[in-house]
Amino acid sequence: MKITTARDALFAQLQTVTRAASTRSAVQALSGVQLLASKDGIELRATDMEIGLRVPLEGEVVREGSIVLPARLAVDVIRALPGKEVSLELRPVEQDVEILGGSASFYIRTLRLEDFPPFPEVEGDVVEVPGDAFVQTVNKVARSASRDETRPVLTGILVSATADELRMVATDSYRLSVKETKLSEPLAGAFEANVPARALQELTRIVQHESADILSVSVRANQVVFSAGGVVLSSRLIDGQFPNYRQLLPDTYEHELRLEGGEVTEVVRRISLLAQKNAPLRLAFTEGELTVSARTPDVGEARETIPVPFAGDPLEIGFNPEFLRDGLEAVDGDVIIKLISPLRPGLLEAGDGSGFQYLLMPIRLNV
Amino acid sequence: MKITTARDALFAQLQTVTRAASTRSAVQALSGVQLLASKDGIELRATDMEIGLRVPLEGEVVREGSIVLPARLAVDVIRALPGKEVSLELRPVEQDVEILGGSASFYIRTLRLEDFPPFPEVEGDVVEVPGDAFVQTVNKVARSASRDETRPVLTGILVSATADELRMVATDSYRLSVKETKLSEPLAGAFEANVPARALQELTRIVQHESADILSVSVRANQVVFSAGGVVLSSRLIDGQFPNYRQLLPDTYEHELRLEGGEVTEVVRRISLLAQKNAPLRLAFTEGELTVSARTPDVGEARETIPVPFAGDPLEIGFNPEFLRDGLEAVDGDVIIKLISPLRPGLLEAGDGSGFQYLLMPIRLNV
Repeated sequence: MKITTARDALFAQLQTVTRAASTRSAVQALSGVQLLASKDGIELRATDMEIGLRVPLEGEVVREGSIVLPARLAVDVIRALPGKEVSLELRPVEQDVEILGGSASFYIRTLRLEDFPPFPEVEGDVVEVPGDAFVQTVNKVARSASRDETRPVLTGILVSATADELRMVATDSYRLSVKETKLSEPLAGAFEANVPARALQELTRIVQHESADILSVSVRANQVVFSAGGVVLSSRLIDGQFPNYRQLLPDTYEHELRLEGGEVTEVVRRISLLAQKNAPLRLAFTEGELTVSARTPDVGEARETIPVPFAGDPLEIGFNPEFLRDGLEAVDGDVIIKLISPLRPGLLEAGDGSGFQYLLMPIRLNV
Repeated sequence: MKITTARDALFAQLQTVTRAASTRSAVQALSGVQLLASKDGIELRATDMEIGLRVPLEGEVVREGSIVLPARLAVDVIRALPGKEVSLELRPVEQDVEILGGSASFYIRTLRLEDFPPFPEVEGDVVEVPGDAFVQTVNKVARSASRDETRPVLTGILVSATADELRMVATDSYRLSVKETKLSEPLAGAFEANVPARALQELTRIVQHESADILSVSVRANQVVFSAGGVVLSSRLIDGQFPNYRQLLPDTYEHELRLEGGEVTEVVRRISLLAQKNAPLRLAFTEGELTVSARTPDVGEARETIPVPFAGDPLEIGFNPEFLRDGLEAVDGDVIIKLISPLRPGLLEAGDGSGFQYLLMPIRLNV
């Protein structure tokens, strides 16, 4: 294996692909980047067995072959290399790679190529989705996905694409986010898959970095492959039944209030400073007013009252301050708050008809 | 105690003073900020018993008094407060402070005023030093100060001011930095003190933040008090005999080379990537050439050769890569490297006559 390429190009592509390399696997090769040089060109690959990345690299293939380099060290060395051109050559006897750039010579031990897993190929139906709509939809719901690996099904985002709608749902059982994005053109196909939230967040970074207008999606039995601007991201799919979110959303509400989102978000943010140590944030609605308050024993308390179009019997409900903030921050402009009672979940809805809903479980208040 | 003031001014001064508050003391009051309102005005104070800060605050004293607020919470609350004006009032019965801003009300428990130590007064001779010269001198030597609390005397920077010279010395016993800064005007007094490096680094931040032209220094038996643009920083002095740095600097050297500092720093930086796990950086001098190399078992090796004006028998010397880099990075422009033998310390010197010297112990090489 021997290639020559531009240092800046190699550095940029290495940085992209390294994000999929494992940082803590027992298999050392998974902390590496595979470099494949063939008559089709040069490709870099990394995977931690959950997600995989594949990026092309411009350059000259002097001798075909494949190696695995330690990812982080390779990034550091290529970043520091002098000169515009760099050459990489496998030295089979030494089992290392000679990296030459300017006056500097590096000899880096390779990792075991045999331990590096094959990359899934794009097969079957491919659906093309607008890149920006996909990114915006992921960003609205991703924070609601669970980080608790003991319930793996909730660590994913349920992605559905049909006709002219892209829908994503995420929940950690305390809150549920749904975003339904209308597409300007109907899709040429349909799919549904529970994709790890981490894979989708990585994907949004790639779509934005590559300025990719189109994202190609290929869903298979237990794998999904995305392509955006030359970069290919593969991810395993999550097994198991995703919660039926329609059943979780109440049919009717007692109260429905439209508020200026920015103002209420600011109030919730600052009053939350005094909701420490698992203390709830209290929302007390009375005729025409909302009082947000919090109290942390031995630290202090805070409260703030703003006018709201509330009518009827007073209602006081408690929420996890961080979760309430997450929901409010996902809404641009007006927010619609829908409530039933202090012990039933509340709903936040984007007031601009953009199809975002955020269902939030209450915390029982000890009055 | 009751004051009213501008929120932005209070936030700025709180942020400044909070840097001296303790983050891990057993005495809770030391994690606080003292707010003193008297007929002389308002002042904020914080101390962790090693360094102390005192800043004035513009505002109206409605009722005199003194309180101690938890520092970090106070910063967060004032940052988040709506409106331009803020009032703070002690509620003696509740033992909390009412903070009002815009429509928001906060009630923060105060910390024990009795536990908050008094602030040392400026006494005795005061010497005025140019702020920028002081900052530059600290920045050149601070990295050589030790962080090892078992040898407290080395955690300080020895600061000497006499006539038209400001001199600072720091060493962690592996390297020694000396910076002698000529002043354009002779000083009105003289002092020498071993000041904790942390206090001086905090001070450089303050001098720059306050754009203070003049720094006033008052050295007492075991305490030093600095004033810069209204901010007063006090620090304990370090007991014990600071090493006699003149005895440590060799009188003569075998080799003296002038190099372009930027180039050699870059070479050292990148070759150091392969000097992991305590491996030394090797500098091999031969007729007209310097080869910098490093080798980490099981990872790889690197080397780079640059032309240097070396003459005589070859000489190979090993250094800690990080310490060598620190010294090179403290030099602007040309660097003069002075060497005796592989087992004697080497010296880096600023080639521009700015009075910076960096003595570095070698690492014995197993050839």
